[in-house]
This record gives sequence, structure tokens and C-alpha cells, in this order.
Amino acid sequence: MRLTQEQTDRYHEDGFLLLESLFSADETAVLGAAFERDAAVPGPQRVVEEDGERVRAVYASHQRQPEYAGLIRDPRLLVPAHQLLAEDVYLYQLKINAKPAFGGEKWAWHQDYAAWRIADNLPAPRQVNVAIFLDDVDEFNGPVIFLPGSHRSGLVQSGRHATRSEQHLDPDDISLTPEQLAGLVAERGMVSPKGPAGSVVLFSSEIVHGSAPNMSPSPRRLAIMTYNSTANLPSWPGEPRPEYVVGRDTEPLVPLAAGFLDALEGALV
Amino acid sequence: MRLTQEQTDRYHEDGFLLLESLFSADETAVLGAAFERDAAVPGPQRVVEEDGERVRAVYASHQRQPEYAGLIRDPRLLVPAHQLLAEDVYLYQLKINAKPAFGGEKWAWHQDYAAWRIADNLPAPRQVNVAIFLDDVDEFNGPVIFLPGSHRSGLVQSGRHATRSEQHLDPDDISLTPEQLAGLVAERGMVSPKGPAGSVVLFSSEIVHGSAPNMSPSPRRLAIMTYNSTANLPSWPGEPRPEYVVGRDTEPLVPLAAGFLDALEGALV
Repeated sequence: MRLTQEQTDRYHEDGFLLLESLFSADETAVLGAAFERDAAVPGPQRVVEEDGERVRAVYASHQRQPEYAGLIRDPRLLVPAHQLLAEDVYLYQLKINAKPAFGGEKWAWHQDYAAWRIADNLPAPRQVNVAIFLDDVDEFNGPVIFLPGSHRSGLVQSGRHATRSEQHLDPDDISLTPEQLAGLVAERGMVSPKGPAGSVVLFSSEIVHGSAPNMSPSPRRLAIMTYNSTANLPSWPGEPRPEYVVGRDTEPLVPLAAGFLDALEGALV
Repeated sequence: MRLTQEQTDRYHEDGFLLLESLFSADETAVLGAAFERDAAVPGPQRVVEEDGERVRAVYASHQRQPEYAGLIRDPRLLVPAHQLLAEDVYLYQLKINAKPAFGGEKWAWHQDYAAWRIADNLPAPRQVNVAIFLDDVDEFNGPVIFLPGSHRSGLVQSGRHATRSEQHLDPDDISLTPEQLAGLVAERGMVSPKGPAGSVVLFSSEIVHGSAPNMSPSPRRLAIMTYNSTANLPSWPGEPRPEYVVGRDTEPLVPLAAGFLDALEGALV
């Protein structure tokens, strides 16, 4: 599917775009089940909540689960990513934030590109995030909140001031100060896109965003694919970050002919 | 002001009732300023957030601030309280939850009466809470969330299982389990009343409620007066709880002739 001119304009204006019910209930159920399988795989790609038990996020499910290996080439994700970046793209990162029922903790206000510049020397913010709702999202289960247009302010907070996790660069480590946020909110307001499972939010790697804890009995699982321009590769003076947080396959991705579920069923025949 | 039959019916059905903009902007500003003054008074009536610095709640402001001494007799609060309990009432407790910008922490899902039965041997749930919004309340600054009708389930969680604070009985200490909550939410859903500063929510001491942290740059200060039937007094086998958490003046309250601000200005002339 291609975005309309109005949709691409709105993305560039606001820094995000909601596409309601882009994936079917069947597809979303398949992705949810594949995530649950993957969340049970031990390893450093699995980040737990502060309680030390429940899964907070899992990285690189496409390396272990065929559903996600297909999903990253799904034309409903790749075609818009090509349109918005106007360049060839590859998968820089795939993570699934679990935000479990009653207590999935908040994610601090941050800009993704701040983390990626610090950790991976990523030269420019030429990324687009594509987030798929694996559950219905409402005001109670910790929806992502965006400050519309804040991607046009450049990097507000460029330094790292904490180390919450050894496994990944957590938003807490690069969170904006209350003063920075108050100024941006006064100017931009706040918006939290909601919708049924299968909805998709495209968002800039520079937009300021965060989310509250989950107060409800419904989980709020969100699969986020980050596509980066193939002309904008990371580099490391020393040891690179592990492959589960930074994709090494930088070949341009080519869209599947149809949705990931068709491709998967074809492969299983 | 008297509630209509429809309003009292809805209160008894849902366990809460929102009255938008019951107090004027002037009145709300006066109450907000009086709270800020009171929040600076050191003492055990002042509960701080986990950061040890910011104020989480202040008790019994009516004992120190004339605005709140008048407010508890304001006919806009007392007349509905009389109507809903159909008994003479006195002030059992007054607290102001500060929920400061960016980080006022969540309040666990709980029923107030569970706390009061445990701590004060309060014989029956013959209380009504009257909460005044001292700030605009939206989806981002941690609104109170109710499970409509849950007050009709009686006490779901009757024991105390933790001690978060030595100063007061914190909702964390009597929070419902995820299983209890999931059952109630499936049956009742969730609602979070929002509105401009000066709005009022009346709610039952048995309704299950909680709130998320404040993600926004706006505080969410909420003044809560709890009226109890004068025929339903607390008692203690040993030492009673301090007066700042349990009012000792159990004389029936008589409404002022006009709003608290008029009475206050009269007193100042």
C-alpha cells in the first residue's frame, strides 16, 4: 500500500501517522502468538521489568521467528518506509515492547535518534519507525504519547546521563529534563494514538515520545521495526553493539509480493 | 445545590458522579494557592513521593488554612453529601493529592473503606468522597480511574499486605490482586472522569479506583473531603490514628449560607 500525499504531508508535519486496522485480526493473533513464543527464549535479547520477572522488551524476533522474518518485508510496512525516507532501507532494529497488564512500567520521554547516535554513531536521523499494535490500545494500557512536530526541533537532549540496563540503551538514560519537556509541551501539546489491534503508527526517530505504565488488565504489546537508510550506516570506534540491537544485514530490503501471512503459508505448504 | 434524582440514581448505580466546573476559576485558584502554602508546612501530615522530595499528599489542610476550613462547609459539597448518605455527616478526612508534573507516582487500585475499616474500625461504608479538581484533568496527568459499579461488590480485598508509609495507610498496602482486578474490569470496564479545574467528582468509599503517574508538565492536584455519617464513628482498641488522618470533631456539619469564598471574604472584612 502507498501512502497518499496527504498522509506523507501529515507525517512530515506531525512526525507520526496512525493507520487504523492495517493488519487483520488473524494476522495480529499470529504475530502475538509468535511474540509469546519468542519471549520465552532465554538470552540477552530479552529485557525484564524492574520486578525481575516479567518481560519488558524482546529484540530481534525476526532472527528466531519466521512470522517476524516475513513481517519486516511486508509491503504494508516497507512501501511507506521507502516513501517517507525516499531511499533504500534495511532493518536497523526490531523490538517488541510488552507492557504487561497491571504494571508494565513507563518509558521515559526521549528521542530514539539520541540513543542511536550515541551508541552506534548513526550519522543522520534517516530512520522511520513502524509500530504495530499487537493488542487494542486505549487510554488505560499505557499508550505511546507523542509531542506532535517535536521531530522538527532536532536533538533536544543529546547526552547520556544514566545506565538503566546493561543490555540496551534505555530511554531513561537519555530522557529529557522536565524543563525541556514543559517547553515542548507548551508549544506542541501531547497526542496518544489509540486503536484496535492491527493498527500501525509510523513515527520519526527524532520525535519526542514516552508512555505511562499499564493500569489495565490488558497487555499493550507493540512491535516496532526501525528502517534505516542504506546510505546511513552505523560505525563503532571499538566493539559494535550486539547484533540483536543493531542489524548487520544492510542489504536493501525488497517488499514481498503479498502480506507476510500469505508468504508464511506458502512456505509451510 | 441539590442533586437531581437522575444524578443521585447515577451515583448509586455507578458509584461516582462528575459535576463539571462546579467551582469557578477564581475559587479554584484560591484553593490551589492555599494548598501550595500548606504543602510548605513541615510535619507528619505531609507525605512525600518516593524521590523523598516532592509532596505526594497533604492531610487536614482545613486545620491550618481558612480556605479549606470554609470549603468543608460549602453547600455545594455538604448538600450533595447529605443527599447521598441521607444522614448527618462530619468530616472524617481531608487530603490533597498533589500528583506533581512529570512523575507524580501512581496510586494502586484499592477501595478506601478497606483502609478505614482496618485502621479505624469504621463500622460501615457510610461515607462519601468529594474530590475537587484543583487543575485541569486530562488523559495525560494521571486522572483517577474508576471501575463503575464496583462499590456494589462489597470489600474485594479486606486485608493489609504491606506498609508503604508509616504516616498513613497507603493504597499500596491494600491493593487488589491482578486476578481480582481482571475479573472486575471484565465485568465493569474502566472510566476516568476528566474536566476543567473546579470540577467535582463524588465517589463511594467502596468503589475500586486507582491512577497512573503524571506524564505531563501540568500537576494534577486533587482535594478530597471524606464525609462520614455521625452515626458511624470510628473506634480504636489502642492508640487512635493521629487527628490529621482521622477527624475528631464529629459534630454534624451545617452548610454555609453561600460559597466558601464569600464566607472567607466576609471574615476578612
